[in-house]
Amino acid sequence: MFVSDLPTRIAITDEGPREGFQIEKECIPSADKVRLIDALSETGLKAIQVCSFVSPRLVPGWADADDVAANFKPTSDINYSALWFNQRGIDRALAQRERLTLTGTIHVVASEAFCVKNLGRGRDENLQQMRSQTKAHLDADITVGKISVMAAFGCNFQGRVDTSEVLAAIRDGHAIASEANFSDAAIGFRGNCSITEIALADTMGWANPALITRTVASVRSQWPDTAIRLHLHDTRGLGIANAYAGMCQGVDRFDTTVGGLGGCPFAAHPGAPGNIATEELVLLAEEMGIATGVDLDALLAAGHLAEKVVGRQLPSALLRAGALPEVTYHV
Amino acid sequence: MFVSDLPTRIAITDEGPREGFQIEKECIPSADKVRLIDALSETGLKAIQVCSFVSPRLVPGWADADDVAANFKPTSDINYSALWFNQRGIDRALAQRERLTLTGTIHVVASEAFCVKNLGRGRDENLQQMRSQTKAHLDADITVGKISVMAAFGCNFQGRVDTSEVLAAIRDGHAIASEANFSDAAIGFRGNCSITEIALADTMGWANPALITRTVASVRSQWPDTAIRLHLHDTRGLGIANAYAGMCQGVDRFDTTVGGLGGCPFAAHPGAPGNIATEELVLLAEEMGIATGVDLDALLAAGHLAEKVVGRQLPSALLRAGALPEVTYHV
Repeated sequence: MFVSDLPTRIAITDEGPREGFQIEKECIPSADKVRLIDALSETGLKAIQVCSFVSPRLVPGWADADDVAANFKPTSDINYSALWFNQRGIDRALAQRERLTLTGTIHVVASEAFCVKNLGRGRDENLQQMRSQTKAHLDADITVGKISVMAAFGCNFQGRVDTSEVLAAIRDGHAIASEANFSDAAIGFRGNCSITEIALADTMGWANPALITRTVASVRSQWPDTAIRLHLHDTRGLGIANAYAGMCQGVDRFDTTVGGLGGCPFAAHPGAPGNIATEELVLLAEEMGIATGVDLDALLAAGHLAEKVVGRQLPSALLRAGALPEVTYHV
Repeated sequence: MFVSDLPTRIAITDEGPREGFQIEKECIPSADKVRLIDALSETGLKAIQVCSFVSPRLVPGWADADDVAANFKPTSDINYSALWFNQRGIDRALAQRERLTLTGTIHVVASEAFCVKNLGRGRDENLQQMRSQTKAHLDADITVGKISVMAAFGCNFQGRVDTSEVLAAIRDGHAIASEANFSDAAIGFRGNCSITEIALADTMGWANPALITRTVASVRSQWPDTAIRLHLHDTRGLGIANAYAGMCQGVDRFDTTVGGLGGCPFAAHPGAPGNIATEELVLLAEEMGIATGVDLDALLAAGHLAEKVVGRQLPSALLRAGALPEVTYHV
């Protein structure tokens, strides 16, 4: 019975604020962004990605990232993270070091075409950038523990992505980590670059459950001691099925967004749903007896707040239908 | 590897017209309903449920069922079906016998509370009704081959539904079939009541993949030679994951609605999504190498037509995002 591989507990990182506000065209007041983060802090979630320190020219929705990071109300047992892709981003994140949990990620891309579209540089150039960024992280005493693979399941600009490309991208990431440790040790060790997690992102909604199953199995066979995280988008409606397929392979770490906020601004399908909705993943898990630690009612309230903040109905079905009547979960 | 249980081909019944128009508040012109049926006939679908012969007082959206059934353009290799729950419905269906494929279903309900809400009668009374309806089917030379279980995974009015209730409901259905054959044989055999299919309906969106897995396994262990059909709603966002879990158990028959039209008018969650969207099930299947026979582009066009006909955006994510670029399937 394959269900026996299901984890007993999953860890969810809600990236609603970061993913959600980067794609919205309207200028959303910083105070509203802060309100949503504070609401998410009340749900039992233990990890929230609050903002993106990226170029305001490329992502105008996060021009106010510094303000938002400085003003949400932190709760002590929650990991508040942020995203960045260059030195300027690191510097902005470091200014919020007391409030954010700064961890370094080595971002790699399984599709050359998407790398150019999303990061404005080819994969070779990106690896160069990640090399120097990783060193910068270690110099700033930021632990680098994660390799994240974008477009790991397919690409709107390139088509299908073979698993061999995913494995090659992860190897590139590991090479950067090894090299950084080596050179860092030579000059006196400051940070720590030990990869404990590989994140596979279905950035443009190309995954299906069979592909998730195969890819997770392939990655695990190469790096059996490294945790696998799934970052799934519900672009074409298969997101929750893909999460379930991941759980069946024992995956216990997921990125989601409350309400299904978001979608990648560079992924070329305006109007399509964003990431898988946090509340739908919580329902999926809890109904199967998998603990999430999340209060679903509080999360749905945060989802309704998110709809008010962005001024439109979000794609989450559960936000429309409401939780199962009379059903509660142990939080 | 559990993926090996996946079927190589699935059969899809699109119930978009029937499910979709029963819930719409606006009065939709019969000609528009016919246009949608005709568009679905061009997609490669081999089974379409076109209308519901139910009381116009209870379901005003199908007051024109007779007109619609009389006016769509039938294609010879497509099974056009209809729904009914009483003698008046049978009579209306018989008037369209040349155009519709009439088959009798024994409708049973796993939740007493939903039975009262949806059919206006308790389960005992419903069984009485099904007994006489089954005999009426056989008298009219309508083959009775299916037992359909409503609220098989949970009920908004009653809560969780135990698998034992599902099995009991199916046994009730089988008892009606046996009795009808027996009495029918005594008076001279006309029809045929041989149950070849058990349909399990998640009428109010309570299912999850683990529950689907368990329930399908339980039903199959009792009736190993009877095909299982899943009729899934995406009310709370788990519909496609549930379909995948069914496929993993070898289920190869699904009811869907184009665009995710529909939702049960008596299920008490206005605004929630309806059935799983045909196009998302096609994508799920075809991307995993499971043949559907459906032309996804033609189906998406029918989905956009359905949105025009009902005058609102339908819940299907795939309808927003579009099919995977440059990917085609063998139809």
